[in-house]
Amino acid sequence: MRSRFDGSPRSPARKSRPSDPRPTSEVKIAVLGVGLIGGSIGLAARQRLGAEVVGFDREPERLARAVQLGALDREAASVAEAVRGAEVIFCAAPVGALRGLVAEALAASDGGAVVTDVGSTKRALTDALAGEPNVGRFIGGHPLAGAETAGVENARAEMLEGARWYLTPTPASSGIAYDMLQRVVAELGARPQAIAPEVHDRVMAVVSHLPHVLANVLVREAAAALSEESERLPEVGTSFRDTTRVAGANPAVWRDIFDTNREAVASEIEATVERLREAAELIRSGDADAVAEWHRAAGDDRRRLLESELTGGDLRELRVGVENRPGTVAEIALALGHAQVNIEDMALYPAADMRTGAISIWIAGSEEAERAAGVVRELGHTVALLAAGER
Amino acid sequence: MRSRFDGSPRSPARKSRPSDPRPTSEVKIAVLGVGLIGGSIGLAARQRLGAEVVGFDREPERLARAVQLGALDREAASVAEAVRGAEVIFCAAPVGALRGLVAEALAASDGGAVVTDVGSTKRALTDALAGEPNVGRFIGGHPLAGAETAGVENARAEMLEGARWYLTPTPASSGIAYDMLQRVVAELGARPQAIAPEVHDRVMAVVSHLPHVLANVLVREAAAALSEESERLPEVGTSFRDTTRVAGANPAVWRDIFDTNREAVASEIEATVERLREAAELIRSGDADAVAEWHRAAGDDRRRLLESELTGGDLRELRVGVENRPGTVAEIALALGHAQVNIEDMALYPAADMRTGAISIWIAGSEEAERAAGVVRELGHTVALLAAGER
Repeated sequence: MRSRFDGSPRSPARKSRPSDPRPTSEVKIAVLGVGLIGGSIGLAARQRLGAEVVGFDREPERLARAVQLGALDREAASVAEAVRGAEVIFCAAPVGALRGLVAEALAASDGGAVVTDVGSTKRALTDALAGEPNVGRFIGGHPLAGAETAGVENARAEMLEGARWYLTPTPASSGIAYDMLQRVVAELGARPQAIAPEVHDRVMAVVSHLPHVLANVLVREAAAALSEESERLPEVGTSFRDTTRVAGANPAVWRDIFDTNREAVASEIEATVERLREAAELIRSGDADAVAEWHRAAGDDRRRLLESELTGGDLRELRVGVENRPGTVAEIALALGHAQVNIEDMALYPAADMRTGAISIWIAGSEEAERAAGVVRELGHTVALLAAGER
Repeated sequence: MRSRFDGSPRSPARKSRPSDPRPTSEVKIAVLGVGLIGGSIGLAARQRLGAEVVGFDREPERLARAVQLGALDREAASVAEAVRGAEVIFCAAPVGALRGLVAEALAASDGGAVVTDVGSTKRALTDALAGEPNVGRFIGGHPLAGAETAGVENARAEMLEGARWYLTPTPASSGIAYDMLQRVVAELGARPQAIAPEVHDRVMAVVSHLPHVLANVLVREAAAALSEESERLPEVGTSFRDTTRVAGANPAVWRDIFDTNREAVASEIEATVERLREAAELIRSGDADAVAEWHRAAGDDRRRLLESELTGGDLRELRVGVENRPGTVAEIALALGHAQVNIEDMALYPAADMRTGAISIWIAGSEEAERAAGVVRELGHTVALLAAGER
């Protein structure tokens, strides 16, 4: 697969570009840990990419089941055997086991392989791996998919379809590894987006971990208050049920998530405490208009937050001239991710001297592409925005 | 309808008792305010009780629409006209308008009529009406039904079917009024339960008002945090969406609810603040086992809270000898409500001297009936628990 980065037009993640002469079926993928997510990656890689997928799992029955369900072409007896010859290696173990597994995969895999994970928190893992040999080939990942069920039996290729898949490169990340990973993720049907590990964890703290904490706390408070009143929970319907739906979900999973995102979650809780204090004061003040205004603003915020992020438009290509130094690809991907620009596809074209080169980045919609060009120019790179269809 | 309280067996709310010779179609009901709830009450009263339903609303178009939709037999030009001859009067106006409306209905209605409301908070209204002439004929009410939609167009008789309907008598409440109201509510298809106004408000504060506050606060915190990170809301799916679903819902309604339940809501927020502080400390401590335990306990609490409250069993009759003094019926209903005993039906049998009498209370299931008998005996009344089928 390395041979693709030769400056020639390359494989499209979207149909609007000419197809790659090299069949994707030659891609070899390893999946370490074949639960719900690992199984779904295996299914999607086999079905959509025609890739050869080899898997490993500490539980032999689960591994056999994954082969039986078509999530793997074959099983391996060890991590080392699974990653042999693999170009992309997905570590899909529980968060607490990822550090050791990623290190093992990095040590055992080929020099051209990219290693990623699918854990729900990213900073602790990235920090723990810093300094690990070959860590430039590790790019953290987090697909926002599959929470309600577990187990390879529930794995489906469609679970990844259209799902946001965060990738967390660092300045130490190999640009070639990032490019390969983001393309495979897009080809699995998901929507990759670069984000810094610590930003990822802060975002997840507020939109995912904090809701779980609030659900837990609300349930505990209700249980205590109702028991004090000797009252049974009334059939209040939606508000209590909705707000507490995730209370106590998957204790093993959440133990690891809270443990690996302690600071961000605790900070978000504290910020929420401040907001609650203000709300209590406001409500107690009896200023009904101000209360109504506060309530209305929350409704406005929610609508704005949940607005669909439809962009669309034809793919435009940004050709970026870069010095081929470590971290450039990650830097650009992060800057675009931060600017909320969706990278539809990306290609690296190193020059013969391997010290300069070009990166092509495809963006949907002309306006979005203009904006992306501005962001990349601000990083000090030269950018050519090619006309639609121009190559 | 007063003539029913003559000691003879009376109308069943459940089929297991002999039917009343008097057709319920003679009941006359007034509905003041014909929105979603008022309209549904009108529909259910006409369809299930065959009652004559007269309505009034400050908005003439809405009133005409209610007649057109079959929620009313006819419209009245004023509160006074609507309540003339009515035996049960439902005030279904916004919470902020209830005090005036109830007082007007009490003043204009017959001496035998019971006046109730359907507001979401009860203590403030009850307190405001204390000392009002004829307040003994007012019994507060709160059906837990219909939140997602509004307007008489969405009214349905089925909305009340099986719905918990809190009734909030006080020591000043007329026993006869309470009995009549709780029977009509049961005949509308709902499940009446007596609860003290202040207990109602504390329970609602935790299971309904607090979830709304938490949803609001979570949305505002997420909007602020994401804007700080210049991040768009990721497609996190269920947890954020579920937890914030009620954020900013119906500002006008919630303005009144927060305003009339200030202390209880503020206290619940403060209790939640304490729990959140503890959670932040626990998560920050890095004691993953303790975090997992806390998380698991929340799941257990939720399961216990949402356990279905199936009881069932044959109806048993408790015959309670009482002095016919004000407040006895309310006292018994509240004590049973507090003990989480469901009253399936109730009948008053005043003795000829109007100073002593009997109350029959029907409870589903022998065990539940035994427990109810104990509760009522503790209040100092004599109780006979009749054998199943015995009258």
